[in-house]
Amino acid sequence: MATNSSIVLGIDPGLDRTGWGVVRRDARGGLTLVACGLIHTAAGQDLPQRLDYIYKELQQLLQQYTPDQVAMEQNFFLKRAVTMANTVMTRGVIILACQQAGKQISFYPPKRVKMILCGTGTADKKQVQRMVQLTLRLDKKPEPDDVADAVAIAICHHKTAPLTQRMNVQAAFLEKIKQAREQQIRKK
Amino acid sequence: MATNSSIVLGIDPGLDRTGWGVVRRDARGGLTLVACGLIHTAAGQDLPQRLDYIYKELQQLLQQYTPDQVAMEQNFFLKRAVTMANTVMTRGVIILACQQAGKQISFYPPKRVKMILCGTGTADKKQVQRMVQLTLRLDKKPEPDDVADAVAIAICHHKTAPLTQRMNVQAAFLEKIKQAREQQIRKK
Repeated sequence: MATNSSIVLGIDPGLDRTGWGVVRRDARGGLTLVACGLIHTAAGQDLPQRLDYIYKELQQLLQQYTPDQVAMEQNFFLKRAVTMANTVMTRGVIILACQQAGKQISFYPPKRVKMILCGTGTADKKQVQRMVQLTLRLDKKPEPDDVADAVAIAICHHKTAPLTQRMNVQAAFLEKIKQAREQQIRKK
Repeated sequence: MATNSSIVLGIDPGLDRTGWGVVRRDARGGLTLVACGLIHTAAGQDLPQRLDYIYKELQQLLQQYTPDQVAMEQNFFLKRAVTMANTVMTRGVIILACQQAGKQISFYPPKRVKMILCGTGTADKKQVQRMVQLTLRLDKKPEPDDVADAVAIAICHHKTAPLTQRMNVQAAFLEKIKQAREQQIRKK
């Protein structure tokens, strides 16, 4: 708590630019700026790399300035949006953990997962559970929904990643041909 | 990539419940469920604790099952919402880093920060910069906006935390009196 002398790290979060400022309060209540700056990540970088960079920069700031407290802006969301924001924050932390473990993450739209497993993008939870059970020859349906969904995403990746990989290789090859042609046209 | 034998960890993220499933694909393309489960965090816990728990559970899963790849659902957002989602993910990672460093985080609505610094909740960026400069007796305005905002949040915390603390103590005291009275009434 900010009694007597204390140091506070203020943070204005953003993926592109996270502002930070360290302010010290002396015993008589006087405030002094210790340091401030920006954690900047390039838009060209992958999301996992960017989150990891911000995480590590922040770790270093916390070590260097040993603030007593951290303060951050609070955004107000409607009730439904709070749940979404919590899920998105959880995603951020998961992406970070995977990046730090050197694991590549692939993202699949829910509709594609359902399409790959059930043949239709509008399949319901029960259909997904049933197809997960059939695909993996399980004695019973995976429960609860969240677990079945997670397993479904893994199946979707297994089924589509080799194809996606081939398509990416093909796309890169076509892109090269296109570039070579454009260069030839320019030379003429 | 999912060629030959490979292991994929699928994740269905959520703050309350994060589903996970590990699926192995053998050389002939057969899929087998290795393990699946739920990372569950209690609604009563603080957000930083919950994010930290999910992060650590996931680290352990990654170590235990050594997946070759991770797959997660992708949510589609409109362009404006993508920026917001990126900011929210960044918040998650920042909260995690602070929790891991044992730092308590306080959250302030932007309007309150402006009110505390400028006396009005509708102050613009320039007014905030100016008041940060005046409060901390700086030679020049803190630049860019993000840095000024971060410093403003730290100032807001310094200025309001002792009061908030006193109010919390007072509120806890009043709550105790209320409870004691209610118990007395019940005894009668």
